[in-house]
This record gives sequence, structure tokens and C-alpha cells, in this order.
Amino acid sequence: MTVNSADEQFVEALQNVLPSSAFRPVEPRYLEEPRGRWFGKAGIVVAPDRVEDVATVVRCAFGAQVPVMPYSGGTGLVGGQVMPDGPAPVLLSLERMNKIRATYPDENTIVAEAGVILSDLHEASRSVDRLFPLSIAAKGSARLGGLLSTNAGGVNVLRYGNARDLCLGLEAVLPDGQIWHGLKRLRKDNMGYDLRNLLIGAEGTLGVITAATLKLNPRPAHEGTALMVVPDPAAALKLLAMAQAHVGEGISGFELMARTGLEFLAQTMPEQRQPFEVMPEWFVLIDLGLAQGLDPAQALEKLFVQAMEQGLVSDGVIAQSEAQRQVFWDLRENIPEGNKRIGSISSHDISVPMGAIPDFILTAKQRLAEIGTFRINCFGHLGDGNLHFNVFPPKGESREAYRGVRDHVQRAVHDLVHEMQGSVSAEHGIGRLKVPDLERYEDPVKLQAMRTIKSALDPKGIMNPGAVLRDVPAP
Amino acid sequence: MTVNSADEQFVEALQNVLPSSAFRPVEPRYLEEPRGRWFGKAGIVVAPDRVEDVATVVRCAFGAQVPVMPYSGGTGLVGGQVMPDGPAPVLLSLERMNKIRATYPDENTIVAEAGVILSDLHEASRSVDRLFPLSIAAKGSARLGGLLSTNAGGVNVLRYGNARDLCLGLEAVLPDGQIWHGLKRLRKDNMGYDLRNLLIGAEGTLGVITAATLKLNPRPAHEGTALMVVPDPAAALKLLAMAQAHVGEGISGFELMARTGLEFLAQTMPEQRQPFEVMPEWFVLIDLGLAQGLDPAQALEKLFVQAMEQGLVSDGVIAQSEAQRQVFWDLRENIPEGNKRIGSISSHDISVPMGAIPDFILTAKQRLAEIGTFRINCFGHLGDGNLHFNVFPPKGESREAYRGVRDHVQRAVHDLVHEMQGSVSAEHGIGRLKVPDLERYEDPVKLQAMRTIKSALDPKGIMNPGAVLRDVPAP
Repeated sequence: MTVNSADEQFVEALQNVLPSSAFRPVEPRYLEEPRGRWFGKAGIVVAPDRVEDVATVVRCAFGAQVPVMPYSGGTGLVGGQVMPDGPAPVLLSLERMNKIRATYPDENTIVAEAGVILSDLHEASRSVDRLFPLSIAAKGSARLGGLLSTNAGGVNVLRYGNARDLCLGLEAVLPDGQIWHGLKRLRKDNMGYDLRNLLIGAEGTLGVITAATLKLNPRPAHEGTALMVVPDPAAALKLLAMAQAHVGEGISGFELMARTGLEFLAQTMPEQRQPFEVMPEWFVLIDLGLAQGLDPAQALEKLFVQAMEQGLVSDGVIAQSEAQRQVFWDLRENIPEGNKRIGSISSHDISVPMGAIPDFILTAKQRLAEIGTFRINCFGHLGDGNLHFNVFPPKGESREAYRGVRDHVQRAVHDLVHEMQGSVSAEHGIGRLKVPDLERYEDPVKLQAMRTIKSALDPKGIMNPGAVLRDVPAP
Repeated sequence: MTVNSADEQFVEALQNVLPSSAFRPVEPRYLEEPRGRWFGKAGIVVAPDRVEDVATVVRCAFGAQVPVMPYSGGTGLVGGQVMPDGPAPVLLSLERMNKIRATYPDENTIVAEAGVILSDLHEASRSVDRLFPLSIAAKGSARLGGLLSTNAGGVNVLRYGNARDLCLGLEAVLPDGQIWHGLKRLRKDNMGYDLRNLLIGAEGTLGVITAATLKLNPRPAHEGTALMVVPDPAAALKLLAMAQAHVGEGISGFELMARTGLEFLAQTMPEQRQPFEVMPEWFVLIDLGLAQGLDPAQALEKLFVQAMEQGLVSDGVIAQSEAQRQVFWDLRENIPEGNKRIGSISSHDISVPMGAIPDFILTAKQRLAEIGTFRINCFGHLGDGNLHFNVFPPKGESREAYRGVRDHVQRAVHDLVHEMQGSVSAEHGIGRLKVPDLERYEDPVKLQAMRTIKSALDPKGIMNPGAVLRDVPAP
């Protein structure tokens, strides 16, 4: 399908139908992405502040067959938010669609626009004594529309689910510019096909999400956090099962970390307090949020004692204050920044069936050892089977020298994930980075169904072309 | 689109490619449905025991343009499982695809075929000390494929979600007869569009689910159940919020019931023990499942005392044994049977935003009073905003006499649900019964997107034609 650049004529047409407040200069910030692998282009940047104007933009683009690049917080890690090739798109920023439309604390729901920043959503929920549990390191700049479009994960998935599990309803503009009014606030609604989950995770290729009804949760009455040293990932899994038997759904986070992560922090962020005198090979962060009448510190201590008896842990520290809890979490959340400062050769956002995790870590290291000498920082959301398995050059060497083996490293890790029935994109999505992986590893029948759906719903191929799918046949 | 009957020639073609064990006589049980509103037809009944044979059936049907009626447990309440009009379909029963393929208790997952009966799935989960929480009254005959295809709800949705929330992966045969191998066991997987959720709830109109990977849960260490008398539904909602503050996610069920339900049971099932000396106007069943170290009876008592102080409850009884717990649940689960024996004029499976429930119940009764004199049995899953609002003739009169007002009654209830931003199919689906409701109440842009998807994925219109959508345009 051919698409056209957002040229002067198209810009003029938009100027005739949108308020002047909707236009933004084409600044570099709209065209960059955090990993610096691509630089996008845009014929024009528009930032409407109401869904009707979003619809107008898409309708115009549909008419002129101009590509639309929906733009949310710009924090995505797979290049889904930049269009480096082909005709220059209209970049449709949701930044001014940033209202909380309504909160319903009695119902545990909130209705928010796509441009609301995640930390603002946290704040709005807290102000009515509720919790919006989705949380990722980029929470200060990531916006709701992007979080839903990529089905974001983060640190609370174990307890509360991924972005899609937290969404009850959507308002969205479909590729022909029509508005779907689907902001239902219902826990149960079996009225036909699940269009909501189709748009969630479609990375802007099937339409633009403009607002959502989200589930809130009661705030746990008491929270508590511990770091516990485990001999290996297998013990960490057993510790998780033990913790689940102790406190049921009360586990909000269960994060695995490794010595490499601490070393990287010591090297690049020395201001980060180190929790252990001797850096352990493996340790976990356990976060509990319990209801009235339960004491998380007590529960963590009981867990620690029992785990000690069974040889699952050898050391541990339980946060004694909210400030210390924050220090533990900062440690976890600074690990990606430490990685960035060291500079990875290749980073992998993978998941495997829970039981396969220890075997995966061992075998992946063996296979990489056959390619060369690397440092590996493996950490992540153990309770979800989701690891960030990132590969770095040996100390003192630069990633540049390893550019030549990057593809080889990635292929080795991804092939292993696939052998183990895992996913090579657990929570970051496909974007542009993983299009070849999707084609290589995803079931061909599913891929064909995806292409059929894409070409039917977006017959002119204007929505974020090149992301997720390429070579989509004309309908 | 024209489709052809499964005629002699088609049957012969199937006989050439399927083992003889796959053929079943066309017995009435395949053609009936529980509410007796339709009687289906079938040119042939086949019951393959492996996915390859299911695919063969669909491929043959695709080639010959013969409709396929996927048949699971046959317990659906909206006629999605019977095809009374048009060419006789091939009825594709999943009853022999009834194997548990694997259980992974350490991962909390199970892989089961579509023909597994729900109670067998419960048993298989229990045998590895896990819980598969989906539960409905028809659990002894409903099968997994139908439960997923209708996104079944039931009594544990408040805590564990609907069927779609319990499914991690699918194996399915798409309308062209290709097999999608998607039985992943991952909690996080962002590899492209969410085909899984598109098939779940599509009622067999987009393909045939043949197997699924399901989430299991740890079994709560301690369970407890109470019945509490509330002055009205508004108090019941406040009681729910209070219970959530007390025990967090520990509430497995929160069911509202009314005096009419008890009266119907007294009349039609006198063997059912009545829990109260004086039948209360409204009462709730609260079911708790708590982790180690917590005592549900104690928690319920504490809740009862505090609720009493605030005037939210006036009487209550806490189950003192597992047997008494079962009596309370039997009461709840026998209410649909009581309704059936009385014979409703019209029954409604609706949901509204939680906060609107008291107003809905009041206003619905007022509007019906304008139409005539009725008995109303309103009960259901209060914690999900999902009520079964069933309308009966006055005592001593038969439903037959009221056939003339049935549509009027239904329209009044459904219009009100729609005004309150609710759903006229909360958990039963659309089937054939609610096609006009879907067309009347669902957002037109969503409806159009559904038609586009249907005609793209099922271009010959062979999958359960007439269910969910009618008048689907040719692609």
C-alpha cells in the first residue's frame, strides 16, 4: 500500500479544521527514542486536546492516505514511537489529552485520557484512597495511551496483572477516523468481540486510544519490603511458592536481582546505597501489601525463618521504615539506569514458563560463552517468568567493539527462549526492533490472522506503518 | 454469503477423511438448549478426539461452504449452540477432546482440551493442590471450550476474574481450517495482537477453540462462608467495601439474594434447608478464602460486628462446618433451578456500574409496575455489578398468559440498563437470543469493527452463522 507524506497541502488542510492551539513545532524530542537506535521524522506535529479533534486528524490522514504516528510518553524501548523510513507522518501527540475525566472510588474505577502521565494517575488514585497498581521505572514520563498500546507490565504484574488486565473500557479513534465510545465501567460485559483487548497491545497500528476506564484497587492497609539472599534462581522460585502459601495474593512484587546489577550500580551510581556488605550472587526483593490486621514485617520475618530452615535464603534485610522501603525499591528501579550507563551489547525482554527459569539462565550463559566473554545482568519480574537478560562487554571494554556480535548474541538468546516455549517480547512489545523476531518466532497462523485483521481494520495502512507488522497485504 | 447444507455428499467426504470413531448419530441432545426456545438442526454430528481431525472437519466445511456449529457442553443460555435456521450445519462436538494434557502445579498452570467438563477441571486442579476458580451452576456438564467461547463468569469473578482472565494460551482451528498453536504458559507475552482474547467470547464465530492453557491458583488455606441480612442493596455495597478493607483480595464470592428467591425455593424445592426463620427482604452470601494464619470465621464475625454497629446488617449466620458452607452455597446455586420451576416471563443477565445498582433495582421495579403486576427475583454477583433480574407472573398465574408482554418487559429492563451505561449481556453472551440487543445497544463503531473482523477472518461465513452477528458483508 502506498502512503503519502504529510506535505504542505496536508498541513494546510489540517490548519483549516483544527484550532491553532493543536499545532506543535516539530521538535527533536518527538523524534528520538530512549535507546538512540532510530531518529524518526514527521511532516507535522499535532496535539489535540479533545477526542473529536483526534478523530479529525485521523479522518484527514485517512482521506489523504498519510501515515499517522500516535505519540504518547515516548518512553517505549522497541521503537514503536518513531517512524524513520518512508513518507513523513503526521505525529499525533496525546500530551494535551491529559485529563482525569472522573473517579469512582466506591466502584474502584477511574476514567483517564491517554495523555495522563502514569505518576499523575498514581496521584489521582491516591487522592481518593485507591491504588492504580501499574508501575514501571519510566512512570514520571510514560503516558496512559502508550502504556495501554504496548500492554505495559512492570513490577506489580504478579498481583494485579498487565495493563490489559487493568482496563475496563476504551475510547479510541479507529483508522477511518470514527470514534469508538467504549468507556464502560463494568466488570462483566459480554457484548460481542473483545475490541478492547485487540487495541491494547496493538501499538497504535489499529487505532488511537484516547481515553480508558481503569480498575483501581483498595490500598493495602500495610506494606512491607525485604531483600533476601538466595543461593540461585531455583531457590528464589521455591521462596516465591512459600511466600504465596504464607500470604496468598498479598505479594505485590517479587523481583530477582544479581550481583552484576549491584556492581554496575556501585560503578555508575555510587550514591545508591548498597544493601549488603558482601554483594550476593542472587537476591530477591519481596514486596507485601496486606489488609487490616496483618503485619508485613512479621510475615516477612516468619517467611525468612522458614526459608532459612529449608536452605532457601542465607541472609536478608527487612525494611524498618517507609524510607528504607523506598531505598530497596530505588535499588531495583535504578538497575536499568545502571545498565544504560554501562552500555549493553544486547538486551532481552524475555519470558519463559516459570519452572524453566533456572534452566534458561544456565543454558543461556553457556551458549553465550561459546560466542565470547561477556558480563550478564539478569534481573526482573521472577513472579511473572519475565527476565531482563542483558549482555555487556567485559569490564574495561566498550560496547562498540562488540557491535559485530550483537545479532549473534541476540539470536542465541532468542532461539533458546523459543526452544523453551517462551516469548522474546514479554512486556516491551514489538515496535520496529522486534519485527523480525515476531516473524521468526511467532506461530505462522497467528501471524497470518494478524495481517488479515490489520488489513481489514486499516485498509489504507496509515496507522503506524512498519510497527509490529510489515508487508501487510491490501484487503 | 450463501452457505450449503451438510448434505450426503459432504458427509461422504468427511467419512473418507475421518476415523469412523469420530461420527455420532444426530441425537436430540445436540439440538436442544436449556431454555427450550430453539431446536437446532444438523446434517451430521462429528466428535473428533484430536485437533488435526477438528482441523480436517473445518477445512472440509470451508471448501464446501458448509456451516460449522461448534458444540461444547450445550449449557449456554442464549442459543449460541443451536442453529435452527438456514442450511443444516456440521455439528462439531468437542466431547472427545477431553484430556488434561499437562499440569504444572509449580507454575500454577494447566493445559486442558476444550471438551473437559468444568467439574473435572476442578478435580484435576485439586489433585495437584491447586484451584481452578471459574465456577458456574452448570459445572457438572459445561465444557471448557464453551466456557471460553462465551467468556463465562460465575461466582468467583470478583476475586479471580472472568474466563478470559484465567486463560494464558489457546490452541484453535481458524475458519479456513488452519491450526493456531498458541498454548503458551506465560504470564507476560507481548508478541503482537491479542488473538486469544478475540477468540474468547466470540462464541465460535471466529474459530473453534480446541485446548487452552489456564491459570491455577494456590488453594486458600482456610475458607469460610456467612449469610448476612442487609436492609437493602445499598447497604450490601457498603458491606462489600467494608469487607474489602478487612480482608483485601480474600473475598472469593459476594452474592446478593432476595426474599423472592427463598420463596421460590420453599415452593419448588422444599428439601432445600432455609437459613432464616423469617425470610429477609435482602441478604448476601460472603465467601472468604484466606491464607495461612488467618481465620475466616473470626474475620466474618469481626466484619459482622462492625457492620452491625453501622446498621449495615441486622442478622447473620456463619457456617460452622464445611457441610454448612455447602448448604449455603447450595441455596445460592439452586436459585436458578427454583426460577426455572416457577417459570419466568423474562430473565435478564445484566450489569451496571457498581454504584448504580441500588438505583437500577428501584427504577426497574417502578418501570415494570407501569406495565403490570409481576414478581421479581433479583439476585447475583453484586461484587461484579452483575445481576440476574428475572421477572415472573404473580403467584398462581402462568407465564403463558404473559407471553404478550415479554418483549415489553425485556425492552423496559434493557433500556434502563443502557441508560445507566450497563450491559444487557453481562456473562451469558449474545448467542442468537441477544442479537437484536447487541444491534440496538452496542456502540455502532464497535459493531462495524466486529463485522469487519468477522468477514475478514471468516470470509465464507461458515463459523456459527447467525450467532452474535447477522448480515455480515462479504469481504
